[in-house]
Amino acid sequence: MPQKIIIDTDPGVDDTMAIYYALESGAFDILGLTTVFGNVETPLATLNALRLLEIAGRTDIPVAQGATRPFAEPYFGAPAHIHGADGQGDLFLPAPSTQAISLSAAQFIVDQIMAQPGEVTLVPLGPLTNIAMALLLEPQIAQAVKQVVLMGGAAFVPGNITPAAEANIFHDAIAAEMVLSAPWDVTMIGLDVTHQVIMSDEELGRYGASAKATSQHISKVLPLYINFTRESRGKPGLYTHDPTTISYLLNPALFEVQPYLVRVETEGFSIGKTWAWPQNVYSPLAAFQVGPEHLVNVVLGADVPAVNAMMLATV
Amino acid sequence: MPQKIIIDTDPGVDDTMAIYYALESGAFDILGLTTVFGNVETPLATLNALRLLEIAGRTDIPVAQGATRPFAEPYFGAPAHIHGADGQGDLFLPAPSTQAISLSAAQFIVDQIMAQPGEVTLVPLGPLTNIAMALLLEPQIAQAVKQVVLMGGAAFVPGNITPAAEANIFHDAIAAEMVLSAPWDVTMIGLDVTHQVIMSDEELGRYGASAKATSQHISKVLPLYINFTRESRGKPGLYTHDPTTISYLLNPALFEVQPYLVRVETEGFSIGKTWAWPQNVYSPLAAFQVGPEHLVNVVLGADVPAVNAMMLATV
Repeated sequence: MPQKIIIDTDPGVDDTMAIYYALESGAFDILGLTTVFGNVETPLATLNALRLLEIAGRTDIPVAQGATRPFAEPYFGAPAHIHGADGQGDLFLPAPSTQAISLSAAQFIVDQIMAQPGEVTLVPLGPLTNIAMALLLEPQIAQAVKQVVLMGGAAFVPGNITPAAEANIFHDAIAAEMVLSAPWDVTMIGLDVTHQVIMSDEELGRYGASAKATSQHISKVLPLYINFTRESRGKPGLYTHDPTTISYLLNPALFEVQPYLVRVETEGFSIGKTWAWPQNVYSPLAAFQVGPEHLVNVVLGADVPAVNAMMLATV
Repeated sequence: MPQKIIIDTDPGVDDTMAIYYALESGAFDILGLTTVFGNVETPLATLNALRLLEIAGRTDIPVAQGATRPFAEPYFGAPAHIHGADGQGDLFLPAPSTQAISLSAAQFIVDQIMAQPGEVTLVPLGPLTNIAMALLLEPQIAQAVKQVVLMGGAAFVPGNITPAAEANIFHDAIAAEMVLSAPWDVTMIGLDVTHQVIMSDEELGRYGASAKATSQHISKVLPLYINFTRESRGKPGLYTHDPTTISYLLNPALFEVQPYLVRVETEGFSIGKTWAWPQNVYSPLAAFQVGPEHLVNVVLGADVPAVNAMMLATV
């Protein structure tokens, strides 16, 4: 039985890898892609989602456009130097021949979850604005969703946009605090693990060597992103941030997971920090005394060779 | 030539170990002890400082009382379960036969530094309120001090009073931000290193086996603190937080030190977090774009056997 998922995305190079990984694995029934700002502005995220589905021959999958701005101010805008000005490695693809559906991302998410209680997994790969909006529209999605498996956060390692914050959480800390404290089964795949799940230049070369249209497209969008990560790491190797959510869904046994209280800072220059704290450890601050209903599954490690092999098997 | 130091302290069991370590090493000219709240309230810190000097036969060293409350509100009070209700392992010592001098801690610090430019090292072992007050009284101490070597902070490891904060910084985050951003030579000895510098029960047993009055006193105040740290660690072994400042002053070559921009969060539930960030790494937040004049020496590691041996040589 394929897993029913909705991918909320701001594609983005590693989003592209994640979407095609999910498609090519054959393990998922992708109910839709919902779009958000982050790696690119939202309208461009929507165009890219449509283009990616067209390249893959999967225009049957609907795309619903989401929020164009975060709950948390100020909005810092999209970083053209990481994913390209077009979010696709400066390929500047032709316009898609399809359109987004008329429902907003949040409404689409609510409708899908409520129509199939216990069956839908949410996979947010960008800032959590749409997911928080869906919770505001229909709080019962917290009970009706199967689980939420998100890419974001940095519990015990430095952030990647400030010392505190991972970029997805930073770009909407208020939404992230809502999503991570909602009473649902939520798994945080943050820099703690994604900075370990590194793919070598040799492994990445397999995309270009594949005849699949999806793999060929990935090989074209990769170079700019590879250069950026090589410069920020000071050595070769790509962080496969977003695809790690798909690997986790395919085989959670390959990952080390610990339950923690998680709170997202929404103030000061620590904004966007995802604090993880074991239950029942004393702290004078009420923020760290909440009950076990708020535990988040924090992913801390992975069997990296096995994860990379599983991903490359879909190339 | 002995190093001229002023120890700002809230004794406190590990403060007691640090003060006696400094005294027994013979390597320091201790100009005075200044007192602050933290492990105990300030008036009790003053009584304890006087008692400790009397036990050591060093009533020639002046004690100056400092602030009774932090700049940062709210004030969370002293934790009786760690150092004892009396800060001395619930020994409930008799009253001292001496008194504090009439100068405030901040005034004493300013007077000493300005009278001996380039010669005085400040060694803060508690919340940084007195040090920040001294900076407010006379900003030129930043140029006139030799260096500041403080116990506090947690750059790359979790805090010990919240997920974010080490206790000394947490108890006055506003003062800490002033002290760590002032234009002086400041070294931060935080949990990054002090959670590595662990003394075994066997090593601690040498205090009780020594005939020195100072070591005998330490052996009496230790049990409650040992029990607390054993419970919080889940295994035996004592963090020697405050004494690590003295070890650093005696032999900095035993430590791994890296320069970082350091900012202290003063808002939200991240209050008291000491963010450390390499220079010249991009961040959209202005807080992390300040110049190299604000670099702090962050101590990250130690040759623990050598440090412990150096400390135990004074027992």
